[in-house]
Amino acid sequence: MNVSETLTGQSRVVIEHVSPELDGGLYPIKAVPGDVIAVEADIFADGHDYLTAVLLFKHIDDANWTETAMAPIINDRWGASFVVEKQGKYLYTLESWVDHPGSWQHEVHLKVADGQRITSELLAGAQYLDGMLVRAGGATEQKKGGKGKGTKAKSEPISESTDAKAIREMAALFRDESRYNEAVSVAESDQFTFYASRYPERQHVTRYGHELGVEVDRARAGFSNWYCLFPRSASRVEGKHGTFKDVEALLPRISGMGFDVLYLPPIHPIGTAHRKGKNNSVICQPGEPGVPYGIGSPEGGHDAIHPELGTVEEFKHLIAIAANYGMEVAMDLAIQCSPDHPWAKEHPEWFKKRPDGSIQYAENPPKKYQDIYPVYFETDDWQNLWEELKRVLLVWASWGVRIVRVDNPHTKPFGFWEWIIAEVKKEFPDMLFLAEAFTRPKVMQELGKRGFAQSYTYYTWRNTKYELEQYMMELTQTEMKYYYRPNFWPTTHDINPYSLQSGHEPQFLIRYFLAATLVSNYGIYGPSFELMEHIPFPNKEEYLNSEKYEIRLWDWDRTNKLTYLISLVNRIRRENVALQVTNNIQFCPVNDDAIMAYLKVKDANRLLIVVNTDAYNRRAGVVQVPIGLLGIGPEQYYQVHDLLTGAYYNWQGEHNYVELDPYSLPMHLFRIEV
Amino acid sequence: MNVSETLTGQSRVVIEHVSPELDGGLYPIKAVPGDVIAVEADIFADGHDYLTAVLLFKHIDDANWTETAMAPIINDRWGASFVVEKQGKYLYTLESWVDHPGSWQHEVHLKVADGQRITSELLAGAQYLDGMLVRAGGATEQKKGGKGKGTKAKSEPISESTDAKAIREMAALFRDESRYNEAVSVAESDQFTFYASRYPERQHVTRYGHELGVEVDRARAGFSNWYCLFPRSASRVEGKHGTFKDVEALLPRISGMGFDVLYLPPIHPIGTAHRKGKNNSVICQPGEPGVPYGIGSPEGGHDAIHPELGTVEEFKHLIAIAANYGMEVAMDLAIQCSPDHPWAKEHPEWFKKRPDGSIQYAENPPKKYQDIYPVYFETDDWQNLWEELKRVLLVWASWGVRIVRVDNPHTKPFGFWEWIIAEVKKEFPDMLFLAEAFTRPKVMQELGKRGFAQSYTYYTWRNTKYELEQYMMELTQTEMKYYYRPNFWPTTHDINPYSLQSGHEPQFLIRYFLAATLVSNYGIYGPSFELMEHIPFPNKEEYLNSEKYEIRLWDWDRTNKLTYLISLVNRIRRENVALQVTNNIQFCPVNDDAIMAYLKVKDANRLLIVVNTDAYNRRAGVVQVPIGLLGIGPEQYYQVHDLLTGAYYNWQGEHNYVELDPYSLPMHLFRIEV
Repeated sequence: MNVSETLTGQSRVVIEHVSPELDGGLYPIKAVPGDVIAVEADIFADGHDYLTAVLLFKHIDDANWTETAMAPIINDRWGASFVVEKQGKYLYTLESWVDHPGSWQHEVHLKVADGQRITSELLAGAQYLDGMLVRAGGATEQKKGGKGKGTKAKSEPISESTDAKAIREMAALFRDESRYNEAVSVAESDQFTFYASRYPERQHVTRYGHELGVEVDRARAGFSNWYCLFPRSASRVEGKHGTFKDVEALLPRISGMGFDVLYLPPIHPIGTAHRKGKNNSVICQPGEPGVPYGIGSPEGGHDAIHPELGTVEEFKHLIAIAANYGMEVAMDLAIQCSPDHPWAKEHPEWFKKRPDGSIQYAENPPKKYQDIYPVYFETDDWQNLWEELKRVLLVWASWGVRIVRVDNPHTKPFGFWEWIIAEVKKEFPDMLFLAEAFTRPKVMQELGKRGFAQSYTYYTWRNTKYELEQYMMELTQTEMKYYYRPNFWPTTHDINPYSLQSGHEPQFLIRYFLAATLVSNYGIYGPSFELMEHIPFPNKEEYLNSEKYEIRLWDWDRTNKLTYLISLVNRIRRENVALQVTNNIQFCPVNDDAIMAYLKVKDANRLLIVVNTDAYNRRAGVVQVPIGLLGIGPEQYYQVHDLLTGAYYNWQGEHNYVELDPYSLPMHLFRIEV
Repeated sequence: MNVSETLTGQSRVVIEHVSPELDGGLYPIKAVPGDVIAVEADIFADGHDYLTAVLLFKHIDDANWTETAMAPIINDRWGASFVVEKQGKYLYTLESWVDHPGSWQHEVHLKVADGQRITSELLAGAQYLDGMLVRAGGATEQKKGGKGKGTKAKSEPISESTDAKAIREMAALFRDESRYNEAVSVAESDQFTFYASRYPERQHVTRYGHELGVEVDRARAGFSNWYCLFPRSASRVEGKHGTFKDVEALLPRISGMGFDVLYLPPIHPIGTAHRKGKNNSVICQPGEPGVPYGIGSPEGGHDAIHPELGTVEEFKHLIAIAANYGMEVAMDLAIQCSPDHPWAKEHPEWFKKRPDGSIQYAENPPKKYQDIYPVYFETDDWQNLWEELKRVLLVWASWGVRIVRVDNPHTKPFGFWEWIIAEVKKEFPDMLFLAEAFTRPKVMQELGKRGFAQSYTYYTWRNTKYELEQYMMELTQTEMKYYYRPNFWPTTHDINPYSLQSGHEPQFLIRYFLAATLVSNYGIYGPSFELMEHIPFPNKEEYLNSEKYEIRLWDWDRTNKLTYLISLVNRIRRENVALQVTNNIQFCPVNDDAIMAYLKVKDANRLLIVVNTDAYNRRAGVVQVPIGLLGIGPEQYYQVHDLLTGAYYNWQGEHNYVELDPYSLPMHLFRIEV
């Protein structure tokens, strides 16, 4: 760097280690309207001068930055926060400069305390005030002592602001040796501090090198209760293919249980080439319906609807009726094709060729999936492929869909997701994407960074207290908290976890309850889950007679302890804001290796949740409540009200006894009421 | 991002979280020639394909990048390393791409193991080989089966390389159904792997977004033994001002003790205005010599030499003689002026003015330093100021100086240091700067990042085992290890720490020994330190009768237990490479709260250092040696050889007893000899 190129040689402040900042500012953090974004940074300069630091932020549609003062925390770390009021992208960055008037006042304090006479310092202070006067819109005196005549003698313009007047008078006082004592007292006063900080010098400002982003999604990104069902199994009549009309008839039940997102696996025409039969058999009997993930037939591809489910109009009708029940319908984006998909003929270049020129079917060697053509993202025609997929999503959006669950996003390029999510949100800012990636940690994280509003997690396989606490710490105490919104599923239509294959009711209650209280977004695969379906395909974490391969007839009227708990917990989730955010979790020590206790606090809503993760044994222990944090004194009584049973307990102090029997109810959901 | 702008839509690999990387690549890490730079990154793609990743590096003078293969470590983290052979700046970055032939071979393994016939796969493999053939410089067959005539029939060019020939034959084999079994075996062979990795596809390469730097200083940046003395106190004659000649006479003693950097506080003319007297008195008696930090008089400023010390020629002579003793002379850059400094007249704009137009003297309110004018770095004429300071350093360099200790760098802008260090090193790459900043942690760190080769530390105030271990962890286990080279000083001419004011000999031995064995760069302020001077200025961590304010007459011939230890330890440091690096330290548990034990290993040199930090009590404990790490079996005997006393001990297993009496020798310096 050459001196002449160094335009900032007088800028002395350093701003670094800004938090939150993802990958040097490459990716935005996530929020929902109303969230408080707390920003911190190391801010310091050479020497011992005072600094001023401000946080700048704006909605991307705003013309100007809003500015808020930062305050030192400790050890040259500064902090400030701002609220993201509305949907869309926000930007934030930082500025700082040496606060000469502030440093000056500090030195005045020290010298006055030492008994020094500060005449010269007051003159310097008057010079600072001259600067403030200009910035306060006051006119500068043209000629000091320029003895004017008549009414023009006073140099103050008539319209001068109150501030300007006060600053002008202060400067005059500082220059008036006859009023020395008064001047010293004003120099030391908050009044000086006030004007100095309202009209700061802002010389040689250091501005942080990055403008960082916040992607503010609508509220449902942060708080949602998902219910997955196969519409073709929605019929009440044995052997009859379910329809959107049948699904409409189920809405009272599903919304009655408290769900607000109805997620449907693919609803497109299903191919017949190499169609799979019941239990994933390669032999398909005539009349078998095929796998909804074998997308595409002569009746259409990703922008068409399977005729047996209904028409586009009927699908739009379902969406409208669902909305009346406070529910949204989420579609499933599985970017793969049946050999019968129109793209296979119209765009063979979007698929990988085998040496004999045929299209390469899907493989997970040694397994072969002849019924599926994966899309080849390395195609030289990738731009048209991307545009076509965007067109598909815009078609879905035109039907009224604003939530998309994406099947296996981790097998398509990250750059594609970053692009298409941004593109679709440009036209439909309400659009939310859920990443169904069950793969290695960094791959799942990257999808979150690139724009997925919510993500599936390892929750399905985290069962013990230790595993769950560790995993929650990873999700809420590391950088993931900024960009990864976990969505917990006890089961999915692809996963019947070993932990539930026993069909043991308390285990279902526990697995459900943890999902619904550890995080603010969760879902169940119904009615399989709430009816406690559990028989596995032998030696696999999959269901026997999975409705991925056949139409199932469910007893939609059945209720049980689990459906009761689900309805209750979803109501509690709606009524308690502390359950509507994820990162507010704080674990409390319990002297039992199965009982978990966690505090969830938002504003005045303070919940203490206690779960026995051992589904077979009664457990008892002492929960250590961080009463200090809750503002409860050590001698003070406080009431914990179990919202599940209605019971009230009077507690005192940090240590309180709990006992949970899995065969009655293995959990408490306490509201703390002082 | 618009599709058409996305030129990298086919690039699927992500490279992130590269380490080392300081502040998003803003600052280089530090090294000395021969250092191994271990680089890691998260590298992954969508899907399950194999990846290839390479580390690219080059000296800034090299035209081309050198490339070395990275290997996966765990959890999508990859690593590789390179050696910085020579001084100057190195750059490194990363590239990665999907390894299609590698993924192909992996799938071949799985399918063959499953008993599948892979005829089609072999044809795909042949296509990969065609690509390798081109990259191996082989000619592609123009027309397959194009039945040529005569000697031109064979399509292989005569000059084809061995590799190309082998690849061509392999491709032919893969296409020859009659040799199917042979082809399968070659497809699974290391031979295929070898050519695939030697001639990789490199399609759709992802290159990391930053080129990261390594500042490679000469060896002394990493390993140095400093000795500070005031040349004016070098005379053997009472009342006589010491000279460079006198210093020359002391070189045998100082180099005999094993020091290799002789650091002199400022040697410039000293001002007379407001000159300070003995013990920092504001009253200066006639004939008092003044403070060397009150720089500048009519005889000159920072580019001049105090006449009483000698001439420029004599100073250059000292440098030359010192070199004969293997020592370098370090100068002291204190950017501040006496009111008599030529700059005060020639460049009043480089100083801050008071309201009355006079130059502002230094203050640390309520204290005033009328004898010092601080330089005003916010001056609008900062560019000329910077250039003048650069000129000063180039003058010093022209005298032969290649090490500069900088006084209070933390009161001058960081950007200035970054600039001037880089500028001076452009012309004198050997130049090293030591930052004498005793201030807040982040300020000290920042100076390291901006280019100081070495830095003072908090060592002077870290006394207990706990404090020392914590501090060493911070220096060697956090990001600081990459850019902050600690230089430990038990005392300085400014600091007579409380811990040594007792004058207790074992405490001096301990404080010395820790400095010289915890880190590879250290220094002492002599002969004050080795003569165990300790009387403080009352209630201050400063010396009574400090030679900052007066000329001292020292007994340069005195030797004692400490001078013996210093000579011995400096010799051991020269002979044991494990003491020539800092970041190799590893603490060993000891069941005593005063005994510290630490392992320092480099190559075959393995040291175990044990120190009793309690200077008053005999301590005993059991040291837990990580014998597994040292390759020593649990039953195996090993010898530890105390290089301080010559004693040998036979140890076995992890746990070994030590006992250290401060009144005999409170430390062991064991070499582990198996």
